[in-house]
Amino acid sequence: MSSEYGKNLRVSIFGQSHSKGIGVVIDGIPAGERFDMEEVLRFMQRRAPGGKAFSTARKEGDEPEILSGLLPEQADPPSGPRWYHSCGAPICAVIWNKDQRSRDYESLRDVPRPSHADYPAYVKYGSFHDIRGGGHFSGRLTAPLCFAGALCRQLLEKRGIYVGAHIASVHGVWDQPFDPVQLTKEALLEPGTKAFPVREDGAGAAMLAEIAAAKAAGDSVGGIIECAAIGLPCGLGEPMFDGVENRIAQIVFGIPAVKGLEFGEGFGCASLFGSENNDPYCLEAGQVRTRTNRAGGILGGLTTGMPLLFRAAVKPTPSIAKEQDSVSLSKGKEERLVIQGRHDPCILPRAVPCMEAALSIALWDMLAEDMGKSRGPE
Amino acid sequence: MSSEYGKNLRVSIFGQSHSKGIGVVIDGIPAGERFDMEEVLRFMQRRAPGGKAFSTARKEGDEPEILSGLLPEQADPPSGPRWYHSCGAPICAVIWNKDQRSRDYESLRDVPRPSHADYPAYVKYGSFHDIRGGGHFSGRLTAPLCFAGALCRQLLEKRGIYVGAHIASVHGVWDQPFDPVQLTKEALLEPGTKAFPVREDGAGAAMLAEIAAAKAAGDSVGGIIECAAIGLPCGLGEPMFDGVENRIAQIVFGIPAVKGLEFGEGFGCASLFGSENNDPYCLEAGQVRTRTNRAGGILGGLTTGMPLLFRAAVKPTPSIAKEQDSVSLSKGKEERLVIQGRHDPCILPRAVPCMEAALSIALWDMLAEDMGKSRGPE
Amino acid sequence: MSSEYGKNLRVSIFGQSHSKGIGVVIDGIPAGERFDMEEVLRFMQRRAPGGKAFSTARKEGDEPEILSGLLPEQADPPSGPRWYHSCGAPICAVIWNKDQRSRDYESLRDVPRPSHADYPAYVKYGSFHDIRGGGHFSGRLTAPLCFAGALCRQLLEKRGIYVGAHIASVHGVWDQPFDPVQLTKEALLEPGTKAFPVREDGAGAAMLAEIAAAKAAGDSVGGIIECAAIGLPCGLGEPMFDGVENRIAQIVFGIPAVKGLEFGEGFGCASLFGSENNDPYCLEAGQVRTRTNRAGGILGGLTTGMPLLFRAAVKPTPSIAKEQDSVSLSKGKEERLVIQGRHDPCILPRAVPCMEAALSIALWDMLAEDMGKSRGPE
Amino acid sequence: MSSEYGKNLRVSIFGQSHSKGIGVVIDGIPAGERFDMEEVLRFMQRRAPGGKAFSTARKEGDEPEILSGLLPEQADPPSGPRWYHSCGAPICAVIWNKDQRSRDYESLRDVPRPSHADYPAYVKYGSFHDIRGGGHFSGRLTAPLCFAGALCRQLLEKRGIYVGAHIASVHGVWDQPFDPVQLTKEALLEPGTKAFPVREDGAGAAMLAEIAAAKAAGDSVGGIIECAAIGLPCGLGEPMFDGVENRIAQIVFGIPAVKGLEFGEGFGCASLFGSENNDPYCLEAGQVRTRTNRAGGILGGLTTGMPLLFRAAVKPTPSIAKEQDSVSLSKGKEERLVIQGRHDPCILPRAVPCMEAALSIALWDMLAEDMGKSRGPE
Repeated sequence: MSSEYGKNLRVSIFGQSHSKGIGVVIDGIPAGERFDMEEVLRFMQRRAPGGKAFSTARKEGDEPEILSGLLPEQADPPSGPRWYHSCGAPICAVIWNKDQRSRDYESLRDVPRPSHADYPAYVKYGSFHDIRGGGHFSGRLTAPLCFAGALCRQLLEKRGIYVGAHIASVHGVWDQPFDPVQLTKEALLEPGTKAFPVREDGAGAAMLAEIAAAKAAGDSVGGIIECAAIGLPCGLGEPMFDGVENRIAQIVFGIPAVKGLEFGEGFGCASLFGSENNDPYCLEAGQVRTRTNRAGGILGGLTTGMPLLFRAAVKPTPSIAKEQDSVSLSKGKEERLVIQGRHDPCILPRAVPCMEAALSIALWDMLAEDMGKSRGPE
Repeated sequence: MSSEYGKNLRVSIFGQSHSKGIGVVIDGIPAGERFDMEEVLRFMQRRAPGGKAFSTARKEGDEPEILSGLLPEQADPPSGPRWYHSCGAPICAVIWNKDQRSRDYESLRDVPRPSHADYPAYVKYGSFHDIRGGGHFSGRLTAPLCFAGALCRQLLEKRGIYVGAHIASVHGVWDQPFDPVQLTKEALLEPGTKAFPVREDGAGAAMLAEIAAAKAAGDSVGGIIECAAIGLPCGLGEPMFDGVENRIAQIVFGIPAVKGLEFGEGFGCASLFGSENNDPYCLEAGQVRTRTNRAGGILGGLTTGMPLLFRAAVKPTPSIAKEQDSVSLSKGKEERLVIQGRHDPCILPRAVPCMEAALSIALWDMLAEDMGKSRGPE
Repeated sequence: MSSEYGKNLRVSIFGQSHSKGIGVVIDGIPAGERFDMEEVLRFMQRRAPGGKAFSTARKEGDEPEILSGLLPEQADPPSGPRWYHSCGAPICAVIWNKDQRSRDYESLRDVPRPSHADYPAYVKYGSFHDIRGGGHFSGRLTAPLCFAGALCRQLLEKRGIYVGAHIASVHGVWDQPFDPVQLTKEALLEPGTKAFPVREDGAGAAMLAEIAAAKAAGDSVGGIIECAAIGLPCGLGEPMFDGVENRIAQIVFGIPAVKGLEFGEGFGCASLFGSENNDPYCLEAGQVRTRTNRAGGILGGLTTGMPLLFRAAVKPTPSIAKEQDSVSLSKGKEERLVIQGRHDPCILPRAVPCMEAALSIALWDMLAEDMGKSRGPE
Repeated sequence: MSSEYGKNLRVSIFGQSHSKGIGVVIDGIPAGERFDMEEVLRFMQRRAPGGKAFSTARKEGDEPEILSGLLPEQADPPSGPRWYHSCGAPICAVIWNKDQRSRDYESLRDVPRPSHADYPAYVKYGSFHDIRGGGHFSGRLTAPLCFAGALCRQLLEKRGIYVGAHIASVHGVWDQPFDPVQLTKEALLEPGTKAFPVREDGAGAAMLAEIAAAKAAGDSVGGIIECAAIGLPCGLGEPMFDGVENRIAQIVFGIPAVKGLEFGEGFGCASLFGSENNDPYCLEAGQVRTRTNRAGGILGGLTTGMPLLFRAAVKPTPSIAKEQDSVSLSKGKEERLVIQGRHDPCILPRAVPCMEAALSIALWDMLAEDMGKSRGPE
């Protein structure tokens, strides 16, 4: 495993789905940054199972326990501290695992679930792999990612940088995309305030119908998430291999089930003429901008100052109720497999905050590197 | 800039389009590996301008000069050594830049070319940016990448791992995809032997017609490259953030003009049911395989042992002959821009070996890490 | 802060002296390694305060709680599992902080203790620095280092590599050094079995007298630790900057109070002739060895196969009872400072296992890298 | 091999003593920094063989050829450009190897030279190791290190930070140490202006006599170098493992023949009381300083703002004219060895600029990291 990300900010994620706890160490956040823990929990709540966003976050499970690096401010109500500040030391937060019904996962070791990590993990880690609940491959490990992302989000917001995302499509039903040129803070953040994070609620309803139909059929569906950031300075990124796309890609592909990533026009540009795909420069109130933004705010691995946009393809949940073909590794023969338990027929809604978290972490890390490199110490 | 890639293998690329030379330092290749320099040159020739592959590579320009790390074997013909072996020290190869007609690039500093790195590079590096020929952002920097890739390719081939690629589409014209399940070495490597690297020559001819039409119109076209590897062990990769997709993505987005990347079914899986997207396991001659390979040979960030497949979207060359809108940074007003000089109306053919190089480097680095991590020193 | 170490093995330490907990994430240990937790605790007990080694380790405080990455074996007595195995996922262990009497540390923020990190930490982190108990600078943070080291020690021992250390000197009183040529496992490990880890108990008694005298005088004393490893293969290390000395130095200087490090003859070689300092080769039972070992088992950054030896200088505990000169930062005037509380007049005994831990981690990381690099994947 | 150093500044050294060239890639220097190449050459001349410092550097050999990353300014005399500026792209400089009389190095492969890397390199790299002139282990590889250091030196000087060194001792003859409290720029830089870099010329004469005597006896001598920096901000460094001592140690042990490193009082503090070793704070012109500086300007891995001081032990040149004991690896029997050729009986004078280069690189890298981490992007 290599569950660390970042250069100047180091995010190290640990835990398995059914280990005592999961969590994250975040090393490199400057001292003296103030964090609103209510806001952190509200953000994390967006990826929580069954997550009704903006409900009474504090009372529910999956609340991270802060072990180090963040100190509560003193004059706080008895309900628990809301404001914390960083002290410069590495931050560690743990989420305790409860309800670890480690049911018959052993059988999965023998008959791997199609399109899960079971089989390659068995080959790599042998019978020592902690297969319960998917182990370290579980989507549950995105909870500490979201904690780290929630902190970075607040760091960015204080600098006027905002990150948002929405479900762009589910099983072929499309939401309205973000406006790549005139993307306002309101438009960017609005989907995150909804229980089902889309821009057009009509599209959302149609998506929910797709999901319900899949569920009824014992099946699952995939989709696409669109994620964006505004307020970025021009010139961020360190090409060739630590450019903006490289760094975002390295973290986004760490979110389970992501199978594709495109920036701006992305795969669409493959069928365009250069004259169609190029973004002409213009001046707006004395500022250099582009009339279109097919580049997704990135040229040569550097931010252009226009909104940064990417889309990530999320595959359908591999755990489905339908019977599937697999093999018994011990018996060396093909077998039919029925996966027990309830499974999310579509993880897109919960993946939305994960994308925002990943982008927030990547952006903060690049901003920290940029300070020393592009401009140099004063 | 941060033009280094890799963990156990470190590839550090240097140079600007019009600097004295460009090149690469490759640190971490084991001692005693034998390399066929004829084959290296043949591979590099595939990305050379006007590159008629497999012609008399040795006589042409862009031949790398090896400064260190590789020693020629002795009993070689006077025409120059063909076989080299690594001595364990870092390998450095330089390609000398000739014909550096540093024509009027200064004007581009003032009036940036749409969809080039000119403008963000100006903001980041100021007037100090070496804009001649695109500087460090030039596609020319993929030549040392191909040198490094050519070495890794040979390292992989000796271990039975083969890497190949072809143009999957140009401006909407599609070649036949690789067979994701039964991908033979012959099918994989065949496109690389052609002057225009496609699987179906009919498709290639149609693509060439698209390119010719674009050129005639003073325009350019984009496309998609499909790249694959066979012979990989199952279980390669270090999730969460050094999984196979993460590592490949980090290097592939270092190739100029890449705007999208998808593995296996990629964005296609977003409109599938789980029951359609899951790859059922089966046994073939006692070996565990999958009947389909929508995963592209990767589950949970680990190789499955099935062919590894990805597609990368390459945008149309931004340098077009058509007049475009830009701004004069010095005058602070909008201006029309006409880009002088001849420019490649489609870089897809030359990008094919770059993808193979990138994948070869990423795979070798992961193999080296895997040895120590998964199995541990003996 | 940047409290991570290693390349193929990543050790990330978190916590402050008075935070809820301190701990470590260890990423990169192969799956299927078996660990004796009794032995881990016994090792950690050696650095515990007031540490009577080999007493009833399990009942005492500072016992790490394993959150992830290690799974207990099943057939274990009810007193708690003794044997664990790694599952491949990152290992996280937490040590809970108790008795956090956060007495008047605030005054130290204003009047920094001489030769502590108080003042530079104040400048770097401002008033946000967690000064309680020294925060992240506390020697307490070596507890998770020892946990990580204890695991690596067991990994090494299974491969026939042994690590040991002893107090070489305290305040000018010297123990007998390790034999650099004929260093047996017994001689190497013996000091670690003693309550006061020296080779000659007479020397130990004299050191204890020095410590007692210093304590009585409200003062403290420093000393030197000698650390060694046997059983290493020849050729380990990756020069120029990841050679054996470089990597050991990077971790050893992470142990608080270390101010000097020398390998083999070290500073002594500065007053020798080459003919005195060179280690002549000889053959013993057909094996190449050296007659002397002034190199400390390292040439050119590579292990020679001879015992690896280094010495580290540990400064006297800066917290002393004697009144000292300092300044009030708020008042901008010089002030006399009296440090309250009990403080260890000599940290050498507790630093011995820390050195062993640091060396064990460094060696395992290098072994893991060596597999992929020197020999290459098969 | 792993010949790269640094985090935000990456320095990658390549070449063997008898390869076509040796050199360095420096990735991460901000664009727009101005460099005086005359001064770079003057600095490099200090480590050149037979180096009469400050002579007509430009006419001599070992002059680096700049391949990329640095652009000459235009209005320069025909004798060649003196002023360059960085463009943001990685800098590559090559030093061509001449006079590669690859005499009978093959015999050394069989009968390794005591206390050289020959034997462990043979075990690690087999017969593929480039043993000619020591290969990548040669002291010659410090030439590109000095080039990189010369650039960083100029970056530091523009920020008021100065780095200097002198020979502290040769074979037991001691120079006067730097004043650790009142170290002026003049005192710091003066030794570097001398042909034999000491503070007291009388001590230098005595050292030269030691060297001459050793040479006459077919022998060699070692010594100690003291290196310092002034003008550093307080609070630089990223503990625990990227603290100032850790980072300096990692690069200094990359200089061949270094066997020990101590900061401030170093090993001396091992025989002091805490009350003797502690540095009391005081106020000078309103600024917090320490009356003594036994810490060497570093507490808790952070700079204190006082002069930073370290000493490095350099072993006697292992190549001596005296006959020595070795073994024939092919014959499996002990043999007497006489090393041919002229060898430097003492490398201390040439190692002085290497220390300054190493410290300059480490400091610049830490300054770059500090910007983003401690203070955070604005």
